[in-house]
Amino acid sequence: MNTINHENFKLSSLKHNPTKKEIKIKNAVFGPNEIQLIMGPCAIESEKQLEEIANEVKNFGIKIFRACAYKPRTHPYSFQGMGEKGIQILSKIGEKYDLITETEVTDTRQVKMVSEKIDILRIGARNMQNFELLKEVGKINNPVILKNGLSSTIEEHLNAAEHILSKGNPNVILCTRGIRGFEPLERFTYDALSIPILKTLTNLPIIADPSHPTGNKELVLPLARAQIASGADGLLVEVHNNPYQALTDSKQQLNTNELPNFIEEIKKVAQATNRKIDLTKK
Amino acid sequence: MNTINHENFKLSSLKHNPTKKEIKIKNAVFGPNEIQLIMGPCAIESEKQLEEIANEVKNFGIKIFRACAYKPRTHPYSFQGMGEKGIQILSKIGEKYDLITETEVTDTRQVKMVSEKIDILRIGARNMQNFELLKEVGKINNPVILKNGLSSTIEEHLNAAEHILSKGNPNVILCTRGIRGFEPLERFTYDALSIPILKTLTNLPIIADPSHPTGNKELVLPLARAQIASGADGLLVEVHNNPYQALTDSKQQLNTNELPNFIEEIKKVAQATNRKIDLTKK
Amino acid sequence: MNTINHENFKLSSLKHNPTKKEIKIKNAVFGPNEIQLIMGPCAIESEKQLEEIANEVKNFGIKIFRACAYKPRTHPYSFQGMGEKGIQILSKIGEKYDLITETEVTDTRQVKMVSEKIDILRIGARNMQNFELLKEVGKINNPVILKNGLSSTIEEHLNAAEHILSKGNPNVILCTRGIRGFEPLERFTYDALSIPILKTLTNLPIIADPSHPTGNKELVLPLARAQIASGADGLLVEVHNNPYQALTDSKQQLNTNELPNFIEEIKKVAQATNRKIDLTKK
Amino acid sequence: MNTINHENFKLSSLKHNPTKKEIKIKNAVFGPNEIQLIMGPCAIESEKQLEEIANEVKNFGIKIFRACAYKPRTHPYSFQGMGEKGIQILSKIGEKYDLITETEVTDTRQVKMVSEKIDILRIGARNMQNFELLKEVGKINNPVILKNGLSSTIEEHLNAAEHILSKGNPNVILCTRGIRGFEPLERFTYDALSIPILKTLTNLPIIADPSHPTGNKELVLPLARAQIASGADGLLVEVHNNPYQALTDSKQQLNTNELPNFIEEIKKVAQATNRKIDLTKK
Repeated sequence: MNTINHENFKLSSLKHNPTKKEIKIKNAVFGPNEIQLIMGPCAIESEKQLEEIANEVKNFGIKIFRACAYKPRTHPYSFQGMGEKGIQILSKIGEKYDLITETEVTDTRQVKMVSEKIDILRIGARNMQNFELLKEVGKINNPVILKNGLSSTIEEHLNAAEHILSKGNPNVILCTRGIRGFEPLERFTYDALSIPILKTLTNLPIIADPSHPTGNKELVLPLARAQIASGADGLLVEVHNNPYQALTDSKQQLNTNELPNFIEEIKKVAQATNRKIDLTKK
Repeated sequence: MNTINHENFKLSSLKHNPTKKEIKIKNAVFGPNEIQLIMGPCAIESEKQLEEIANEVKNFGIKIFRACAYKPRTHPYSFQGMGEKGIQILSKIGEKYDLITETEVTDTRQVKMVSEKIDILRIGARNMQNFELLKEVGKINNPVILKNGLSSTIEEHLNAAEHILSKGNPNVILCTRGIRGFEPLERFTYDALSIPILKTLTNLPIIADPSHPTGNKELVLPLARAQIASGADGLLVEVHNNPYQALTDSKQQLNTNELPNFIEEIKKVAQATNRKIDLTKK
Repeated sequence: MNTINHENFKLSSLKHNPTKKEIKIKNAVFGPNEIQLIMGPCAIESEKQLEEIANEVKNFGIKIFRACAYKPRTHPYSFQGMGEKGIQILSKIGEKYDLITETEVTDTRQVKMVSEKIDILRIGARNMQNFELLKEVGKINNPVILKNGLSSTIEEHLNAAEHILSKGNPNVILCTRGIRGFEPLERFTYDALSIPILKTLTNLPIIADPSHPTGNKELVLPLARAQIASGADGLLVEVHNNPYQALTDSKQQLNTNELPNFIEEIKKVAQATNRKIDLTKK
Repeated sequence: MNTINHENFKLSSLKHNPTKKEIKIKNAVFGPNEIQLIMGPCAIESEKQLEEIANEVKNFGIKIFRACAYKPRTHPYSFQGMGEKGIQILSKIGEKYDLITETEVTDTRQVKMVSEKIDILRIGARNMQNFELLKEVGKINNPVILKNGLSSTIEEHLNAAEHILSKGNPNVILCTRGIRGFEPLERFTYDALSIPILKTLTNLPIIADPSHPTGNKELVLPLARAQIASGADGLLVEVHNNPYQALTDSKQQLNTNELPNFIEEIKKVAQATNRKIDLTKK
């Protein structure tokens, strides 16, 4: 096995900066002691849809609400997201329900506007090495969730984070979301060693996405359990109040009525690894 | 995502045989309610070495003792295992310490002799599609642990098991041990969805190997936790009383003095998923 | 094996548009009868360096001159390219030597400016699914070379091309540049079936990059031979007049003094597959 | 990129033995100057079928006739080959038509018998690391064709060859047959750099299999062209006189009536790389 050059990610390297970083945003913390659950629909489809899901998610104690306005879509002729209009809706719903908001940016030209309206920005797998976009979110101060690329190595993921950190934004959260593999029965292969290895290398918080690898909501809970057990500091989960009607990713979104059981099961694995889930108190 | 043809693994298909199988061997059970820990050194190096490790493993309540006499070695000029002499040692130690024994077979000509001396036979990754060997272990009655191939699909793993089952041996236990990937910082990539998907398809017990993917003993515990959390019915773990002196796999074998903590941590994740570890009572 | 949905790339689908497309730019043609050689250094380092290489390349009859001003770099602390200043130099040298110019764009904000100064724009592997960038180069009329992503499927490559075509730019040239694999002795794995399969599906011209998979200039010629033999309509080759001093990719750039032999050898394989290389006449 | 330890394959290492090896068998030579075409059906189905194909293949000047009696089959309930009866048929046909015979062995217990009846033995991809089988064919003197494993590295392929060489059989021919990849439109991914890299490391002859990666006979010729252009010393091609009736691999076997064109096209690429095909003179 190979070694890795810590100089190329010195700002997030445990070797150079051995204290695990805590990233705070409003009433939520990303760090080694608490597990953040970020939930919401894949795409913003309408104000009504978003509000219904926000209301349910809020009731279960979730602090961070996710939804996409800019959708990177493989097929040019499928729904591409609501764009700026969607950002306005998400911002409004976030304020109304006192939820921290999270969304994806896909172009340098979106960054300033989105960073003023939304709390946390996300860089998706397909843009992990869109270096101009990385540099642009390096100039703001909002927390940025950086997913690994479809076939990125752990070192490349850390180097991509360093592109952001080196421009001045210290608030980077890594997210492991699976890699391209050869298994026909899954959408992506989730490497169970990715978080354990990252934890030995970097001080950044690391969350995991249990939705995208599966392509099948029955597999989301067992995968999420494995991710938490392997050390994930949080989960980014797609939930919908009517998954079969969803405009995107309909097969892998959990139904909001499955959330109480999901949260309960994750709580047990969190406790088994000496951590707790960061939920709002009732 | 693709579908899978259940006719090609009908004997182990949940669709054809929906009851989860329990495989009993002496005082141990492989099945949905109990987690088996199989432990022991990578290779049999001498009677003295084997006896010392057996003694320690036994003291921690482990029921099944593993050790290899036939080593499939990538390099032609490295230690190839003790062969039949090693089998005799393992058999003797098993009897002396009242441990169930487990070892790998690598050639059709070994099967009869080994099956008479050792309780459980294992087919390693490199022989998962050595079909003549599969057919040969299909003619005995000992439990057979079948590891997935280095780049086998889930369907191919099930088809390989069916080669054994269809020859008359009903006692097949699957073992997931990671696949070849592109990540330079790990030895193999462990696909966290492999067990959740297998569990939806087959009635066979499924255990996991946390040692081989890592190549690094610091990563064995977090990976083992993820495997148990994802549903594994057991673990196959390399342990040694002096890992740095081991003739093979020296970097990934746990030290026997690390076992109490390892077992304690796995117990917690087992409980968090409503199962318990099958240890001997003191 | 799977089938593919031609509706998602209908503009370039042979099923919908069965005539192989010819793309002309000045005195060069991309299409089924002629092989284009695009050559030049990885990065623009200075006007002097660029002019020396342009002069040599021109002398060998090459029509299209490549060089990067915007470099997507894995490491945040390595040379990031000369930017707009580099574009001006390339444009000036192109005019002076009557060479068609080709360069990479990495951000939507570069497209308009670059498209006015440079003949052919390239989208690199890391931006193959940077959909905003694809849409932006879909609004211009310059030929666009679209490389496959590091782990993209053939269908995803065609879908990415369709993002450009569907915005109105009909001049898309595909380029195969290798995928991420597990082989430690190469930089990327070049799938020898990628061009033969693409040729059965699309009417777009397809060129190949023999430089990036190798990471070693000794392997560039045998790979280039294989690419031409498998049907490539052209090659995109990194050449430098002083490779060991190059600021980027120093090990894989051919030396300009190796070009006569390289071109001679490629000519023979082109003839063996009934095509010829499109060089300027002397 | 990594380096490789030449000590582990010293018998075939160019560093230790810099002269390219020639392996002669009857009137055929494997080596750097001549290209061997090995052709025949995937499986021996009957004496009549085999004789018809042998007759045609012989007429086209082919010297080596391939056919399998022992079939490694993924599915336990599909045709497993004719076994020893098939070996007898192949031997008889070989003598009658004065063809060198080639077939696969899949078990140590077959080696002696097959080596007495058949000229060249083959180890398939699934047995590349069946080390007991490698050692067994190391004890005979027949040429052995060793295919790479489904996910073997180049170094592992060379190490597997060394297992044979180190037991005393100097007549090893490597064969590249593609690796497991993620592309849904092909059966296996053929790495175009595999032969160029092997050629820099080993003195063994290296042939290529254009049939198995494709799963589609339309793609066999373009892949074969690429393999020869990249330096292959021969091809192992599946041909059948009635492919659609074949019991195995029906979609990827060339029809014997396509052979004249296939041979003609390969001849041109061979000449373009300064070699010729080793055919019987008429």
